[in-house]
Amino acid sequence: MTDLEPALRDLVIANRILANENVVDAYGHVSIRNPHNPERYFLSCSRSPELVQRSDIMEFALDGTPIGGDARNPYLERFIHGAAYEKNPETMAVVHSHAEEVLPFTITSEPLRPVIHSAGLMGPQPPVWDIADKFGDTTLLVVDMHQGRDLAASLAENRIVLMRGHGFAATGRSLSEVVRVSVMLPRNARILTTALQFGGFKPLSPGEIALRQNMNPDGKEFYRAWEYWATRAGCGDMLDSVSG
Amino acid sequence: MTDLEPALRDLVIANRILANENVVDAYGHVSIRNPHNPERYFLSCSRSPELVQRSDIMEFALDGTPIGGDARNPYLERFIHGAAYEKNPETMAVVHSHAEEVLPFTITSEPLRPVIHSAGLMGPQPPVWDIADKFGDTTLLVVDMHQGRDLAASLAENRIVLMRGHGFAATGRSLSEVVRVSVMLPRNARILTTALQFGGFKPLSPGEIALRQNMNPDGKEFYRAWEYWATRAGCGDMLDSVSG
Amino acid sequence: MTDLEPALRDLVIANRILANENVVDAYGHVSIRNPHNPERYFLSCSRSPELVQRSDIMEFALDGTPIGGDARNPYLERFIHGAAYEKNPETMAVVHSHAEEVLPFTITSEPLRPVIHSAGLMGPQPPVWDIADKFGDTTLLVVDMHQGRDLAASLAENRIVLMRGHGFAATGRSLSEVVRVSVMLPRNARILTTALQFGGFKPLSPGEIALRQNMNPDGKEFYRAWEYWATRAGCGDMLDSVSG
Amino acid sequence: MTDLEPALRDLVIANRILANENVVDAYGHVSIRNPHNPERYFLSCSRSPELVQRSDIMEFALDGTPIGGDARNPYLERFIHGAAYEKNPETMAVVHSHAEEVLPFTITSEPLRPVIHSAGLMGPQPPVWDIADKFGDTTLLVVDMHQGRDLAASLAENRIVLMRGHGFAATGRSLSEVVRVSVMLPRNARILTTALQFGGFKPLSPGEIALRQNMNPDGKEFYRAWEYWATRAGCGDMLDSVSG
Repeated sequence: MTDLEPALRDLVIANRILANENVVDAYGHVSIRNPHNPERYFLSCSRSPELVQRSDIMEFALDGTPIGGDARNPYLERFIHGAAYEKNPETMAVVHSHAEEVLPFTITSEPLRPVIHSAGLMGPQPPVWDIADKFGDTTLLVVDMHQGRDLAASLAENRIVLMRGHGFAATGRSLSEVVRVSVMLPRNARILTTALQFGGFKPLSPGEIALRQNMNPDGKEFYRAWEYWATRAGCGDMLDSVSG
Repeated sequence: MTDLEPALRDLVIANRILANENVVDAYGHVSIRNPHNPERYFLSCSRSPELVQRSDIMEFALDGTPIGGDARNPYLERFIHGAAYEKNPETMAVVHSHAEEVLPFTITSEPLRPVIHSAGLMGPQPPVWDIADKFGDTTLLVVDMHQGRDLAASLAENRIVLMRGHGFAATGRSLSEVVRVSVMLPRNARILTTALQFGGFKPLSPGEIALRQNMNPDGKEFYRAWEYWATRAGCGDMLDSVSG
Repeated sequence: MTDLEPALRDLVIANRILANENVVDAYGHVSIRNPHNPERYFLSCSRSPELVQRSDIMEFALDGTPIGGDARNPYLERFIHGAAYEKNPETMAVVHSHAEEVLPFTITSEPLRPVIHSAGLMGPQPPVWDIADKFGDTTLLVVDMHQGRDLAASLAENRIVLMRGHGFAATGRSLSEVVRVSVMLPRNARILTTALQFGGFKPLSPGEIALRQNMNPDGKEFYRAWEYWATRAGCGDMLDSVSG
Repeated sequence: MTDLEPALRDLVIANRILANENVVDAYGHVSIRNPHNPERYFLSCSRSPELVQRSDIMEFALDGTPIGGDARNPYLERFIHGAAYEKNPETMAVVHSHAEEVLPFTITSEPLRPVIHSAGLMGPQPPVWDIADKFGDTTLLVVDMHQGRDLAASLAENRIVLMRGHGFAATGRSLSEVVRVSVMLPRNARILTTALQFGGFKPLSPGEIALRQNMNPDGKEFYRAWEYWATRAGCGDMLDSVSG
């Protein structure tokens, strides 16, 4: 056991939380940057997040090459992760999800804007990236670094980017933060969808969004949610003894 | 064991019911006024309601100060509770929730009105409180007594107040009553949302609302729901032997 | 054990099925006419359907008087059942439900019509009964035979009647049939709700409805659903060995 | 044990997956063509898919006649399967489902089109077959080969056909493929339903659809979903040791 173990254990918990909260399903994934080496990241081999165990975690160079000749089958779309780490040195964790409530906002001109306090973290209006704009007809999967870097570039100053007909990629300053925003994004999408049925709505103000985005990503008030989600996901026994 | 124990055990059950019925999740909370001392109330330490146990319950003065030097981490938003007790001496229990079906009614001009008999308890039209009206840009959290009292004042003669982009606060003449109205509010919101899609709808009449609001808050017909919700939440063994 | 036992065991199963399929919850109930005495019916004492056991079943005269001086707490709304049996001698089982998907059709002018084959059983267009039309402001509960008979009269030639702001009452030629239509009614309501968003829709034709309504209420093809629903509800061990 | 066993075990898994993913419920079914004899197919006896076991599997001639004088009660609608195999020699597996999210597209003029990458497999626009067009008033069930063949003919070059007021029939080049498209079809329907509320939407392009339809139906990237769905459905122990 090395001092990476707590971080890798939390990565397993994050996989299970995202599955249990319906952010990912058969597909979708979550990674962390190696806290000791910013040129590498950790991500499971090709396995649905609900089934991921500690032994499934692989290490990759930012260009997606497995470290140490690891020959296991990797996720085809791992380039989403490496390109996001390459783009922004502050990004320490990445989620890719197909959460269906978000999808209508990727195929229409309706912008996804934050309307609830817990989703302020998403920023004022995540951009929508259409793989066809640069790459034409594809399977819509992000399967190499050219595509990954084009996606990452579209993030600009945002932490989240929507992907047309596919899902979203979210980045965070910590694993806890990216899990939190990934859970809140579909919820915000559901609430906004209903509000749009009613007519004009009031989004969070720019000042409110900034205040939410600037909260300490690992503030103790957020441990409450991590503990709750982990326990619901059957990972209560993997939690350390930090009290929140 | 003191004679407060049955009330505190019911407070634990209420936490579990509200979690299991999807009224609260990682966040949200429920309190009771101390039945022996109207200047104090009981509320869990900072923990998600589904995980609350008897040992997590703290006691607070109405201004939010923990009693007896209890140093555990309290909910940041406990001021919602104290201010509601301060405002109305008949209020014996308070719920704060982020239930998402209610949220669209907090960010649009569409009023949330009771359309089903079991939601008559909510009153004819709960007001919407916008923290920004008095406090400008915030995280939207109610973090001191100034904000709590402003929220409580907006209740006026109502038992429920909606909070813009955040959730609702509900007050009850008993714990059973506030749990009941908190469960019914999201359901009423879902039904009204669909009815609004169809066009004109018939809300409960003022007379029907008054009759529902004046029902005995602990009538024996209501024990049926308490027993059912508690059993579903895994608390069947905590129920006393009262038959309903 | 008498020869009523198979019927009463099926009544317990029906309670559990309706709860597990989200047709009833804390409230709502299901009864059968006494197969040996058409002037009496069987219904649980006041308990949520998911919790009903064989020992909870009471027998009532059609006017709602408990048989044999049974002093247990009965459902306040048992008059829905007795009045339905009184109205139609072919009615052998009755369900009262608050299923929320049906509620929007009780408070708007949008008619609930059958659009899927499995809901043809509901008839071409169930009427909506508004308790206020004859009884003015009430709690909306059906608490005596005057109200029960007014509701039953509104059935006219229909098997189902919607109740404004409250729910529905369904009658069947057998317990299996009334359970089936009660499960299908909310599903049909959901599908119709979405179709109404799209615009014009094609309901079942009068001929299709008649063919569905005239199917043998206990045809062997229907046992498949009863077996499935009972097993899902944890009642597999209560099924008899009839194969379907 | 013969070499058919792996295929029949997978057919049992497919039944459980489709039930657990809410594609089928009390009704609906899945079959495979006999890999050794294209004139025959395997399908459960009349039992809800969640309850199907290896011993329930029957073998049929394409016209629906049970092989070997098997006297168990077959599905009334087995003709959907035989006619689909008869129509297209490449079809190796068939699903019939009533998944409710798809139903609104069968009773309105709104076409069901693929908007998410994982649903490209469904083709550009599945046709809608109305049994009444040729057969007039029926119970809407497909109960003989005349009806089955009329349905199969309506497939034309498509892999999926919607059935008015009833459900859909899906065909696949493999069992895994037909399960996958059957899971994705309701999801695509939900997303499209919301997008239609917002206004104009961008469907997958013809080139994107073709690329998705031409993917290897048993590509290793798809095993991830099969493993996940099977595990969620409680069939993890029935999986073989193929790694994906």
